[in-house]
Amino acid sequence: MWPAIPAPGSTFYVATWNPPEGFFHRLPEPKAVFALGAGVDRFLKRDDLPDSVPLIRLTDAGMARQMAEYALAGVLRFQRNLDLYEAQQTSGLWRPLPVRSSDETRVTVLGLGRIGGVVATTLSALGYKVSGWSRAGTDIPGVVCRSGVASLDTLLAQTDVLINVLPSTEETRGLLNRERLGRLPADAGIVNAARGDQLDADALVEFLDAGRLRGALLDVFPEEPLPEESRLWNHPKVRITPHVAAVTLLGPSVRQVVRNMRRFEEGQTVEGLVDRRRGY
Amino acid sequence: MWPAIPAPGSTFYVATWNPPEGFFHRLPEPKAVFALGAGVDRFLKRDDLPDSVPLIRLTDAGMARQMAEYALAGVLRFQRNLDLYEAQQTSGLWRPLPVRSSDETRVTVLGLGRIGGVVATTLSALGYKVSGWSRAGTDIPGVVCRSGVASLDTLLAQTDVLINVLPSTEETRGLLNRERLGRLPADAGIVNAARGDQLDADALVEFLDAGRLRGALLDVFPEEPLPEESRLWNHPKVRITPHVAAVTLLGPSVRQVVRNMRRFEEGQTVEGLVDRRRGY
Repeated sequence: MWPAIPAPGSTFYVATWNPPEGFFHRLPEPKAVFALGAGVDRFLKRDDLPDSVPLIRLTDAGMARQMAEYALAGVLRFQRNLDLYEAQQTSGLWRPLPVRSSDETRVTVLGLGRIGGVVATTLSALGYKVSGWSRAGTDIPGVVCRSGVASLDTLLAQTDVLINVLPSTEETRGLLNRERLGRLPADAGIVNAARGDQLDADALVEFLDAGRLRGALLDVFPEEPLPEESRLWNHPKVRITPHVAAVTLLGPSVRQVVRNMRRFEEGQTVEGLVDRRRGY
Repeated sequence: MWPAIPAPGSTFYVATWNPPEGFFHRLPEPKAVFALGAGVDRFLKRDDLPDSVPLIRLTDAGMARQMAEYALAGVLRFQRNLDLYEAQQTSGLWRPLPVRSSDETRVTVLGLGRIGGVVATTLSALGYKVSGWSRAGTDIPGVVCRSGVASLDTLLAQTDVLINVLPSTEETRGLLNRERLGRLPADAGIVNAARGDQLDADALVEFLDAGRLRGALLDVFPEEPLPEESRLWNHPKVRITPHVAAVTLLGPSVRQVVRNMRRFEEGQTVEGLVDRRRGY
């Protein structure tokens, strides 16, 4: 247990979440590192963790359900006009707005791994018209699945609520740039629960101000905590949560790490073994 | 079609929603009246509609799913601390709050008819700990069902989010009075999507101000539109929607009315035939 350091030559694992810079230089090389989270982008940017050390991340471990709840809160916010009713309330305005049913609401989920898959199927089971987009291509019953950057533009143009749960990789950083945000319908809402470096926040604010996007529920930001001076803080069309869409739950996470450690010891396939080239 | 009036002695039905006072005095007696909504409390308070005329209300007709969505939005608001994060956002505060999982969140649904049943089962399927309460007593798999006023106090004391979808009847008007609201835990949130006359709004505001209740999502009010001077409008712990939790959808409603009309003509059981003594 940190700060105790294993003796040179001893066999050990590290289970950790974003330890201080240079942390791994102070240890002998571990047999493997278990990341206590699902997104390992910060692990892959470190210069103290050699590629020879297997890196194993959490997959689901109670996070998928949380993420589905968060996504659903965002979808309901826009589908049921809760954002507009909030604005009406501040000016004491009683005005019913046209209804959009769930089966008329097109939700696009970016990322269809263990987490995105649960997000998509949960929304689909509630009657939403769900499309999903992933790097690899996936097949999920009830969900229209697409892959490849070429298909993204078409998908964005047919989206009422966009949910981003992609891992942050070289391919996905900056994915939701000005051009792609511009493909969304003017009434589209955005839920970003993945990583802040995937979404151009300046373009987002500009589009919201110009009425070219409807609103955003944001959990992640390029810099966290979100800096005091950010224009997002008091933007009326933006709701901010402090990176809590899906938090690591001790019980399920420890159980998954222990199970993976056993499998690793036995030479079996380990769930969540990170492909460093792919980035997750 | 109104304002055309059927000739005296002719056989006809009326399909309507809260027509002007004295409306039925201007017509011969209809064979039956189809109410284009689920809550018929205002029909039953009229003095121009004789008890001899069968009154048939909508049951579900697309409203149950809408109500489940609205209830879910309220549950997520409180479970996922979206109300508290909103308050934090206004003061630029980045502070993650403790997580409460869905299976630790106790939701109590008041009213277990066609609408309340769908609300309860939808929430239960998403992992919430759902209890239901009804006049008659009902059995819904996955939902702890209670009935009778005596059981209500115990239930309220074990509630994190209270959802009211009861019909407004002599028995339910004023049900959520000061005493019963006082039974709820201080951290409990309330969703009222039924009728405003069932909830003591003054007691609610008092409890919210005193920190004895957490917040409320309100769709219905004793007077609608909610009067300008109401303290609810700008209460920071109250979210207001203008009676839109479940609106009448033309397609499903007309289909249900036509189906019921045929059954009525054939002397078969009609879904939604109102028991005037019971009030729904």
